[in-house]
Amino acid sequence: MNLTELPFTIDALREAYRAGLRPEQVIAEAFRRLDAVGDAGIFIHAARENALAEAKALGEPDGRPLWGIPFAAKDNIDVAGMPTTAACPDFAYAPDADAFVVARLRAAGAICLGKTNLDQFATGLVGVRTPYPVPKNALDPAIVPGGSSSGSAVAVAHGIASFALGTDTAGSGRVPAALNSLVGLKPTLGALSATGVVPACRTLDTISIFALTVADAWTALEAAAAPDSADAYSRPIAVPALTAPPPSLRIGVPNAASLVTFGDTVQANDFRATVADLAKGGATIVEMDLEPFFAVARMLYEGAWLAERVAAVGDRLIEKPDTLHPTTRAILEPGLALTAADAFRGFYQLKDRAAVCRKALAGIDALCVPSIPAFVTLDEIAADPIGPNSRLGTYTNFANLLDLCGIAVPTGPRADGRPGGVTLLAAKGRDALCAAIAAGLEAGPLGATGWTRPDASLPDAERPTGDEIAIAVCGAHMSGLPLNHQLTDLGGRFLRATQTAPEYGLYALAGGPPARPGMVRHAATGQAIALEVWALPKIAAGAFLAGIPSPLGLGTVKLEDGSSVKGFLCETQGLAGATDITSHGGWRAWLAAGAVRTPPEVVA
Amino acid sequence: MNLTELPFTIDALREAYRAGLRPEQVIAEAFRRLDAVGDAGIFIHAARENALAEAKALGEPDGRPLWGIPFAAKDNIDVAGMPTTAACPDFAYAPDADAFVVARLRAAGAICLGKTNLDQFATGLVGVRTPYPVPKNALDPAIVPGGSSSGSAVAVAHGIASFALGTDTAGSGRVPAALNSLVGLKPTLGALSATGVVPACRTLDTISIFALTVADAWTALEAAAAPDSADAYSRPIAVPALTAPPPSLRIGVPNAASLVTFGDTVQANDFRATVADLAKGGATIVEMDLEPFFAVARMLYEGAWLAERVAAVGDRLIEKPDTLHPTTRAILEPGLALTAADAFRGFYQLKDRAAVCRKALAGIDALCVPSIPAFVTLDEIAADPIGPNSRLGTYTNFANLLDLCGIAVPTGPRADGRPGGVTLLAAKGRDALCAAIAAGLEAGPLGATGWTRPDASLPDAERPTGDEIAIAVCGAHMSGLPLNHQLTDLGGRFLRATQTAPEYGLYALAGGPPARPGMVRHAATGQAIALEVWALPKIAAGAFLAGIPSPLGLGTVKLEDGSSVKGFLCETQGLAGATDITSHGGWRAWLAAGAVRTPPEVVA
Repeated sequence: MNLTELPFTIDALREAYRAGLRPEQVIAEAFRRLDAVGDAGIFIHAARENALAEAKALGEPDGRPLWGIPFAAKDNIDVAGMPTTAACPDFAYAPDADAFVVARLRAAGAICLGKTNLDQFATGLVGVRTPYPVPKNALDPAIVPGGSSSGSAVAVAHGIASFALGTDTAGSGRVPAALNSLVGLKPTLGALSATGVVPACRTLDTISIFALTVADAWTALEAAAAPDSADAYSRPIAVPALTAPPPSLRIGVPNAASLVTFGDTVQANDFRATVADLAKGGATIVEMDLEPFFAVARMLYEGAWLAERVAAVGDRLIEKPDTLHPTTRAILEPGLALTAADAFRGFYQLKDRAAVCRKALAGIDALCVPSIPAFVTLDEIAADPIGPNSRLGTYTNFANLLDLCGIAVPTGPRADGRPGGVTLLAAKGRDALCAAIAAGLEAGPLGATGWTRPDASLPDAERPTGDEIAIAVCGAHMSGLPLNHQLTDLGGRFLRATQTAPEYGLYALAGGPPARPGMVRHAATGQAIALEVWALPKIAAGAFLAGIPSPLGLGTVKLEDGSSVKGFLCETQGLAGATDITSHGGWRAWLAAGAVRTPPEVVA
Repeated sequence: MNLTELPFTIDALREAYRAGLRPEQVIAEAFRRLDAVGDAGIFIHAARENALAEAKALGEPDGRPLWGIPFAAKDNIDVAGMPTTAACPDFAYAPDADAFVVARLRAAGAICLGKTNLDQFATGLVGVRTPYPVPKNALDPAIVPGGSSSGSAVAVAHGIASFALGTDTAGSGRVPAALNSLVGLKPTLGALSATGVVPACRTLDTISIFALTVADAWTALEAAAAPDSADAYSRPIAVPALTAPPPSLRIGVPNAASLVTFGDTVQANDFRATVADLAKGGATIVEMDLEPFFAVARMLYEGAWLAERVAAVGDRLIEKPDTLHPTTRAILEPGLALTAADAFRGFYQLKDRAAVCRKALAGIDALCVPSIPAFVTLDEIAADPIGPNSRLGTYTNFANLLDLCGIAVPTGPRADGRPGGVTLLAAKGRDALCAAIAAGLEAGPLGATGWTRPDASLPDAERPTGDEIAIAVCGAHMSGLPLNHQLTDLGGRFLRATQTAPEYGLYALAGGPPARPGMVRHAATGQAIALEVWALPKIAAGAFLAGIPSPLGLGTVKLEDGSSVKGFLCETQGLAGATDITSHGGWRAWLAAGAVRTPPEVVA
């Protein structure tokens, strides 16, 4: 393959490296592409010589997960040897050390190409609020590139970097992804250390990852995520290998009144088509009123949190206001008037509003929303620098205030050819679930590269990690059934659907709701019973066990492949009054037969 | 017993009620005692007629846990039918409804005597910052009564109310307890709903409970605690029955440099004596540098949180400053100058400091500190209204900022006769552990009553704590047998030896070593089987479960007293080749019979 045509997806690069390609060739090609694109707005600092030198120094492939993979970093994230500007030249400083996340990526073998442009101090969703040349949207130069992580998104969309770091407070890691047909992964707050990152709203900021595919974004996250004792906001978040999501998810979507697209009917129709795909894939769609979420979203720029941005910019706003971009300054200045009492009143209001949202989220596994409500042109933002920017945040602004994780994913071109996309959001720590659902939806162009989208199918989630225990569930704990939340609330994740060895009997127990089956081993006369295997964090198994009522318990269940896992069994004694439903082969089949409502013969 | 001599401890009242005493007699006696004390500062609103009417309306004893128990409520907590003033007459309003906690106490049968005096808007630890007459310390009128919950503490210390509600933001539920030889229970934030409570710092406030004994405070907490969907800060916190603490606790105490007593060597020596008692009782004493905790404490009045008090008082500070107590006003006014950016800077600083404290707390079960560093006289506070108040908060101010629970407990008179006392503090949710340790230390006078302290010994911890799960073991996991280490290695602790309900069969399974039994429920033909109940940390149950081989598992086992615990059961299918040893009544008896080595008849 000609080097100029080589996709910079991580797997493609790994394969090329195995075939003998040198990292310095890749770095040279990255900068050739940058030159070919000819957009002086992408990088604030392009580190051509540095990167080439690092590539040469890499030596031979050594198995590190990001060996020779080129990436870019938003210019509010420190990279040693390069200035950090936050798109405010007067603010520039020369960091001594890499940001924690950058250090981890480099330790994993990745090579930093340079520092990318942004809406100044990460304040904006459009990408034009910079004193440097504005990066051009990679797909349509009439459209804003999206921000605040504009340069990072455009660099990935042109295939210059395999992935790029952004930051995301209000949606800066998701909106530019949507506008450039990329994946934008915004992990749970605290998953990626903020050490060495210029804060926007320190309580709401996270580094984010742009990539062409969910798999690449996840690979970067796996390398970047680790607890950092120097960052008090760092939290340990599980980043397991991605596996296929459970088959019977409950996905929340905006109801008709909440599907805000500001008149863009193409966007609304495109979103509905994606929802139909989710339903076709087996998900239960739950229409939700998003007004409580929008009410939270409005607090980000209208309330207390504006003062975090003021705190981040510091005395500059008062002492050197002319060093700020005029729009940035116009947005921040009202924050000066907010009192500490206003801030607390804001927290109380958020606490109340978040309680309402939490209740709504309790009934679903993830929320699927359009990543953006509509597109914004450069002309529109020139005419009104603030209004269209605010509208872009419709489906993103509430996420960090509610401590949700999220991932924006392209779903293929809309009817008019513009990039379609949705964002999956879920409660903190469910990053892997969101990414797995996103992987099932990703489609369409890889940014502006023209490369063929690689197969995104995920392996079945087969085995628990060392910190997990596999639990076989055969009844109301299965996906989509009433007690499944007992698993997911405790951090459980679906591994696979399978069946037992042909040695078990299944019985609909007396009592309920919820209706529950009991499974008993009958080696001689039993059948294979359908079940699901879930991985539960070992530390949560006690809480799970405590909630299991008599006559059910956890024993050892033999599967059809001859292996064994821990799983639900029923005391033989507990079958009094139960109905033998073994012949149905599983609880779902029995439910589908409507049998719960018309119980036939009863076990003695 | 003469009614005037009847202790109003809850058990004593229950016994008197069983003997035929009427609640209206108790209420009349409560007000007789109030009149006898002759302190017009205790109650802002005494509800004599109301309380008598309620007492008459109670009818016959009905088993409710607080039936006929008199209590008082701090006058920043709503009681329907009584004005709420927060010790600011101009602020007074007539609430429509009881505060959530008051409603629960009344529903449990308790009778409210009235509303007690406080440092205005709960701002203070001295009890003299009120426009009403200052309540007198119940033990020594030269000493401040302590605040802000002054009237509540004094009412309990005189035996007028069995318990009283305070609130605690900076220590208002602990300092007055220490100054009046009482128990002051400050539960985990969110355990007691704030609905119907005038806020001081809404993110840091909790209702607290004053009582003469730990047992009485806990009984009130059990009745009062429940999640409240109307209070977004409400959280579910476990309030199990109190049992003796584990024998091998690690208790943190201030090291020599951190044992701040402002020159009061009697206090320092008294504290050291209590620490020696803890060590004698089997605790491991861990000397700690408390400076990180003191650094957090200083933030409460010097930083952002002052603005919460400003937000709570509202426009009054600007529009009607003369309606405020001069000291309250002097404290609050600097809060007006704090900006929202200052508030966020405060949060960042707290987050950093809290991380340091959390690390220190990770190595211990609870922290034991003096409740107050030294006593403060009315003369001292008249000369300097703020300094001595601040000093009183040395060991209390940091607790709510760090999300700790705590309980102040009297430990008997110091060498100079003044009340000695300590406070146990621990991470959120460990309220029961703190109370259990406190119950082992409580000594000395019951406030100013002269009543004899009842036996405070707690029942053995037959029950697991909220962080544990009880597991019944009937075979090789019992103490001294080959697999017992699987429990102890995981932090398991022995609870008790007992036996099952007479509904189980026991079988010596084929295979081994080690030789293992299997227990199966046979309701009709079974017998009682000897077993041991162990408490296993919930977080370890997954690891334990993972090691249990087929055909054994964990289900629900019914015990001889009719209760149920999780425990070992055997699949019926797994009995092939096993020996029925039910008639031996337990595995130890079977082993003692030497039967393992000479297996008799085998189950088919």
